[in-house]
Amino acid sequence: MINGIEEKQFKTVEGGVCAAKGFKANGLNCGLNKDKNKNDLGMVVSDVLCNAAAVYTTNKVKGAPLLVTKAHLETMGGKTRGFIANSKNANTCNADGVAKAEMMCALAAKATGVKPEEMVVASTGVIGEILPIEPIAEHVEELAAGLSPQNHHKAANAIMTTDTVMKEIAIEFEAGGRLCRMGGMAKGSGMIHPNMATTLNFITTDAAVSPGMLQKALGDVVKVTYNCLSVDGDTSTNDCVLLMASGLAGNDEIVSEGEDYEVFKSALYYVMMNMTRMLAKDGEGASKLMECTCDGAPDLETAIIVAKSVIRSPLVKCAMFGEDANWGRILCAVGYAEADFDIDKVDVDMSSAGGRVAVCRSGAGVAFSEEEAAKVLAADEILIYIHLHQGEASAKAWGCDLTYDYVKINGDYRT
Amino acid sequence: MINGIEEKQFKTVEGGVCAAKGFKANGLNCGLNKDKNKNDLGMVVSDVLCNAAAVYTTNKVKGAPLLVTKAHLETMGGKTRGFIANSKNANTCNADGVAKAEMMCALAAKATGVKPEEMVVASTGVIGEILPIEPIAEHVEELAAGLSPQNHHKAANAIMTTDTVMKEIAIEFEAGGRLCRMGGMAKGSGMIHPNMATTLNFITTDAAVSPGMLQKALGDVVKVTYNCLSVDGDTSTNDCVLLMASGLAGNDEIVSEGEDYEVFKSALYYVMMNMTRMLAKDGEGASKLMECTCDGAPDLETAIIVAKSVIRSPLVKCAMFGEDANWGRILCAVGYAEADFDIDKVDVDMSSAGGRVAVCRSGAGVAFSEEEAAKVLAADEILIYIHLHQGEASAKAWGCDLTYDYVKINGDYRT
Repeated sequence: MINGIEEKQFKTVEGGVCAAKGFKANGLNCGLNKDKNKNDLGMVVSDVLCNAAAVYTTNKVKGAPLLVTKAHLETMGGKTRGFIANSKNANTCNADGVAKAEMMCALAAKATGVKPEEMVVASTGVIGEILPIEPIAEHVEELAAGLSPQNHHKAANAIMTTDTVMKEIAIEFEAGGRLCRMGGMAKGSGMIHPNMATTLNFITTDAAVSPGMLQKALGDVVKVTYNCLSVDGDTSTNDCVLLMASGLAGNDEIVSEGEDYEVFKSALYYVMMNMTRMLAKDGEGASKLMECTCDGAPDLETAIIVAKSVIRSPLVKCAMFGEDANWGRILCAVGYAEADFDIDKVDVDMSSAGGRVAVCRSGAGVAFSEEEAAKVLAADEILIYIHLHQGEASAKAWGCDLTYDYVKINGDYRT
Repeated sequence: MINGIEEKQFKTVEGGVCAAKGFKANGLNCGLNKDKNKNDLGMVVSDVLCNAAAVYTTNKVKGAPLLVTKAHLETMGGKTRGFIANSKNANTCNADGVAKAEMMCALAAKATGVKPEEMVVASTGVIGEILPIEPIAEHVEELAAGLSPQNHHKAANAIMTTDTVMKEIAIEFEAGGRLCRMGGMAKGSGMIHPNMATTLNFITTDAAVSPGMLQKALGDVVKVTYNCLSVDGDTSTNDCVLLMASGLAGNDEIVSEGEDYEVFKSALYYVMMNMTRMLAKDGEGASKLMECTCDGAPDLETAIIVAKSVIRSPLVKCAMFGEDANWGRILCAVGYAEADFDIDKVDVDMSSAGGRVAVCRSGAGVAFSEEEAAKVLAADEILIYIHLHQGEASAKAWGCDLTYDYVKINGDYRT
């Protein structure tokens, strides 16, 4: 159990954000991105009004699209028909930001025949440059005309920035005796840090769930997935997770806690945890996925804080890149985690497809084979185990190594 | 005024930690470091018993030398004769760490003819590897025999790890009608982050100051100097600042607040602020010093939190390395600073020897010349100004850019 969520396996299916009944998507290049082979404008629309839930960045600087999305969801009582999203420009820290975000919703609504307040919006890219609305206005009809359940990958491509791989997932689950589906798409891959809703993430399901229970499930799951992800320690201004439920699976609407809600929450955890891993693995410049498990913590908060502290440490990240079993840096990061526990009981192991090696017991180093450690660290997914031996709580956090390419990518992002 | 400390200019003099009356130093290679041209063992001893003050890392993992130093200072009622220090091995997370640190004090005391508890100790280097005591035992007599006021640079060299330049400073000031001196040496240059005493720093003075007033001054000044320095966000296990006052300048001992105390505190600020800048500029892999000033804050804490948040941001650090005027990342880092203020009033400027450019007013971007910005960012010391326009408090923080070399250095530190 992770924060009261049962970790279950689900059957994956094709279809991304269109796997669930009622959703169509599309994406294209409207010219914000000079690379014509890269989409920069995407849209996902539901055949019916969906119940929705969203979480937003905790940064004081909030992208204008987030403000508009929040307002529209409030106006609609937690319901939406879909969203329009662009990459290459964050539409943030601009005097006309809210007006431009409202225009995007109005354009998308007109092209799809819904009301402006039934659409929400998200933007990602450079902060502080005026968003040109013309390329969007000129292409929104074409975008809407191409909406189709087959075009989920075009939308997933449209939200990518420095991502090197598209991030999509879809699964099946059963609720109220009905087969339901849930799918998601996400973009990374820098300015990613715990304590936010992290990046742009869109999740669709055909399960019928009330807005209140959607928001509750999303809040609980975000805490132990996206909020346990750190690529570089920078909390972005435009992070948003949007969850839409069309209800077309035909189950009795989930309006309270119970068996169906638990299944739904486990499915949501599966989708979001897997997207978290994809985001970590494709972190800017990353060559390795790092997963840190903290077991034996006195409480969940402590487990989360410790696991995040290890994942975030630049020195640990560099050591992973260099495949250097410098475990002292791991214990150091455990030691400066801002939580209350006894450091002298801590054990540390490192493992991967290459094996497992114990490096620290009761806060002190133990002899280990450098050869075996090298085998462990040569893999592209490294698992770090911390056992505090002072309780029963567990948590995981995800991140990546720190490489030359991270510096290269971020040394000249705007050019 | 920075936290009640007046920023004054002082005359710098030669001599490092031996500039003040009564101090002798030495350093040599005892074999911990295989590079025979690099010292790894250093010692500073006073002719007389000194009043002393110290601050230590806030990491739960505390190096054994820190525990021994703390115990010896307590036993001696805040007095010491000197210290022995080594690099290459941190003597931390080892079962025999305290015993080895005690041995180092005992060896140094025997070689200099003082009591073991009159000596303190510091170590820096790899965590979790057993410290071999033999090389130290075999060379401590030679080390003591070479103690001289001329050999301050040999001691400064002995504490360097990945530092590329030696860090020493000394100044003159007047207290109680007497000419006093104060000198310091420090080592960087990774695992450096706010909220600690940062790295190894040793400061000597011949001013007469009571242990209590020494500790008070050190605590106040650390808060706005070393604790406002971040190289990589990792808080080390072995950080320690030791301040020793021989009293040989002959002034009436400073035992309470007043004019002499204020001058002493300003002198200490000058020494520690300059060493902070040296540490930032020589941060692992750094090509540029970054200084962030936050003005117009409602209180000092807010000013410190905001300035540190900017200095710490990996994305800002990469942008500085790439000489990219991506100011949105600066505002983003201001936005996620954990303090209470209105982001919509914030101004941001960037300046250097190459000029000054305004990039953000009232939380929104303003047009600026990319050419002028490029000139500003081409310099090797970049100043970032944040004005919150919601109070009178100011603070500064120091850091450096994030470069390929940081990753290179930390990818294979142990080898």
